[in-house]
Formats: sequence, C-alpha cells, structure tokens
Amino acid sequence: LFETIAWRDGKAPHWQRHLRRLQRGCERLHLPMPPPDVLAAEARRVCAHSKLAVLKIIVTRGSGGRGYRPPEHPELTRVVVRYPWPEYPDSYRQQGISMRMCDTPLARNPVLAGLKHLNRLEQVLARAEWQDTQIAEGVMCDTDGDVIEGTMTNIFLVQDELLLTPDLGQCGVAGVMREIVLENAAARGIPCRIGRVSREVLYHADEVFVCNSIVELWPVRRIGQYHYAPGPVTRELSRAISA
Amino acid sequence: LFETIAWRDGKAPHWQRHLRRLQRGCERLHLPMPPPDVLAAEARRVCAHSKLAVLKIIVTRGSGGRGYRPPEHPELTRVVVRYPWPEYPDSYRQQGISMRMCDTPLARNPVLAGLKHLNRLEQVLARAEWQDTQIAEGVMCDTDGDVIEGTMTNIFLVQDELLLTPDLGQCGVAGVMREIVLENAAARGIPCRIGRVSREVLYHADEVFVCNSIVELWPVRRIGQYHYAPGPVTRELSRAISA
Repeated sequence: LFETIAWRDGKAPHWQRHLRRLQRGCERLHLPMPPPDVLAAEARRVCAHSKLAVLKIIVTRGSGGRGYRPPEHPELTRVVVRYPWPEYPDSYRQQGISMRMCDTPLARNPVLAGLKHLNRLEQVLARAEWQDTQIAEGVMCDTDGDVIEGTMTNIFLVQDELLLTPDLGQCGVAGVMREIVLENAAARGIPCRIGRVSREVLYHADEVFVCNSIVELWPVRRIGQYHYAPGPVTRELSRAISA
Repeated sequence: LFETIAWRDGKAPHWQRHLRRLQRGCERLHLPMPPPDVLAAEARRVCAHSKLAVLKIIVTRGSGGRGYRPPEHPELTRVVVRYPWPEYPDSYRQQGISMRMCDTPLARNPVLAGLKHLNRLEQVLARAEWQDTQIAEGVMCDTDGDVIEGTMTNIFLVQDELLLTPDLGQCGVAGVMREIVLENAAARGIPCRIGRVSREVLYHADEVFVCNSIVELWPVRRIGQYHYAPGPVTRELSRAISA
C-alpha cells in the first residue's frame, strides 16, 4: 500500500484522511496497521526542513520465502520518504489541462477496488502510451469501457449542474482529494451523483476536472477531440478545496 | 516479470520455454529482454552445485522516480536466485491432492492475461484464505465466476474423455507445464479443448489435475465436497510429462 501526501509548512493538511485510507487498506489486505504516532514522527523527521514537499508512505508485507503464502506474522516493511514538489505549469491549474483517452483498460475486482495498493502495472502501461508533453494526464476506462479515473487522478464532470464521478466499487483508487471534493460539493449544496460514467457522457459534459492530493484540482480543457471550458462548478470547488 | 524454473542435474529441462515466455512478457510490457546467454550463465553460476533446485528469474523495470511514467531508457533490475526444492509429500503426486474453492476473484484484463508478472496481490489474498495443511492448493475463478487456475498451478479436467482447460485470454498465468501438457495430449491423440470452464463442469468432471513447472502434475482427489479418482488420462499425461 502507499500514500502520496502533500506536506506544507510543517504539516500534512490531510494527514488523518491519508491514515484512514491506509488503515482501511491494511484491513482489506490483512496487514497490521503501522502505529500512527510512529508514522507521524517519521514524517516530521523526513520533512523537517521542507516548506513544501511530497511525502510518500509505503507499507509492504515485508520479506518472505518463495510462493504466495503470506507469513503468519508478517514484519511489515515501512518506507517514509520525501520527494521534491513537482513543478507543473501554472496554466494547468488556471486554464486547465489537455488529456487523452488511454487504451490500457482497468481490470474490475471488488476485492482490490478503491485501495491504493502497489500493483500498478495498469497505470504504468497507461502512462507509457504517450510522450507528448502537452498531454498532462490520461483517462482510464474499465474493461467494460466505462470511465473510471485518470492515471494519477480522480475525474469529475458536470452535466446540467449535476456533479458526476465514477463509482469505484469495481476498480480505481478512491483518492483523498476525491473525498474532499465530494464533501465540499455536499457542503455547498451542489447536487452530486456517484455512478456509471460512459465515455459519451464524459465527451459531452459541460465541465470536466481531475484531482489528487498533490495537484488538488486541474480543470480539463480538452480530452482528445472534445473541448471544455472551465465552468462555474469547477471554479467554485477549486476555490473551496484550496482554501 | 518472473519465471520459476526446475533445475535438475546441471540444467533446466524447459529453459527455452521459460525464456520464450519471458520474452513475450518483455514485449507486452515494453521491457528490453535480458540477453539469454547472460541469463544462462547466471543460472549455471547460482545452481553450480545443485542436483535439484528451484531457479527463479525476476526482471523489473528498474529504479525510477516517483510516478507511473516509465523511464525512457529503463535499466532493468535482474535477479537470478536459487531456492531449495520444496518438500511436498509423495502422496500429492501419487494419490492426489485436496483443494478448496477460493473466494478471492481474478480480475479480467486482456492486456495482462497470460503474463507471469509480479502484480500478484490476488494470489497472495487467495493463498491467505486457508491455513489447513491438508489443503494443497486452491481454485481461483474470475470475476464472472468461471474457473481459471490454481493459486500456483494451471488446472485441467477430463469429461467424457475430453481434456478441458480454461482459456487464459482474460486472466490467469499461461504456465510452461500447461503448454507441455497440451502438447503431450495432442501428440497422444487425446482430444482437448481450451475454453470456458464453469464451476459446475469442474465439480462434475471425471478427472481433475493441476500442474506447474516444479510439481509437474498433481491429480486432484477432492475440491471442497466433490471427490475424484485419478483416472487414465491423468495417469497417461503424468507419465508423459515426467518422462
């Protein structure tokens, strides 16, 4: 399992949410949760001199013998590491990004859906599909052809003033920023639905945006041949989550 | 990607098959294939003093920065390692094994199907479902409920003298021993079909067996409440592949 966490001015603003997701992942994969106070102390140590950094926590089942059978009492491997803040163009946040549709499908498996586990070969293959630096992100669909997420972001669209985001019960990563967007929408009375999102619905949306813990929210200007203008719902939610 | 290879008396009898599968995996994952002569020299070195051993080759995309984007020129990590031969009871091979049905489903994704890649969380969760040492292996079904394979073996059944094994176009690992069984069946005129295998068909089969490169062939005596007797087709193929 892993968590990718924004570290700002001596703390991780969404620390509790990341820890809750890590806890849920540990439960689903039958791993003992690392003690939160140990993780917090390690995070403060590796980010001690950083105003702005990406903090990554990796938890694995640890070392074992050959074969798939997990050790009875796994000794977790825990990695807490700091990365430099990525330098994305300001325009991504202000004017929005260009995306493409990826060919690599996401497999559906309710047992793994939502988790931020480390079996990410699908995302690696999807991200390898393009080199064009004008394309900031790719849309991934499941094996049924429905829209699920970006390679490193969750995706939202607005159609007739309804906010819509894919259901992640069968695949996809349930992002911390997705949760924050949903809560902010609810708090502002923006009607929202979590459900099936077809490509056609995405292509003909009024507004589209993507989000994750590091980039927060990027409006989408283009997906392949389809163009979008950052609209009022995207702007309102963007202000809300970066407040 | 990885390969698990039987090493006997100074060589790997199915070396070329393992290398062909590794090559196919490298092509599908866009990895440069390690030079076969280098792998062969390393295999001979790590197994130099072994009459009987498990040789494992692991190939990864190597080290890179944060994020899913693969490096333009990956420097592969290559691991060639020897493990002791596993000590399974003789009865597994002679009288057969007991199996159980696993609850953890296999996700369907044609892009990854057949490959012996390292994203094996499903197998780890499936193998963690039981502790009973009387159960040697578990049957895994896909998310549609069809039978695909064992956690570490491929599965075959015989019904009305027809040999049947699941199609691996959507998920599963295409094992080297599965290939050998299929070729031996063809060479002996045993009619064979690769296709969809429902649980009901498996439960009511005349014979069932599993296979992999290390165990070769184990007849199946029991899957849950269903019992089987090792039959003539299983015996004939068992003799053929261990010849």
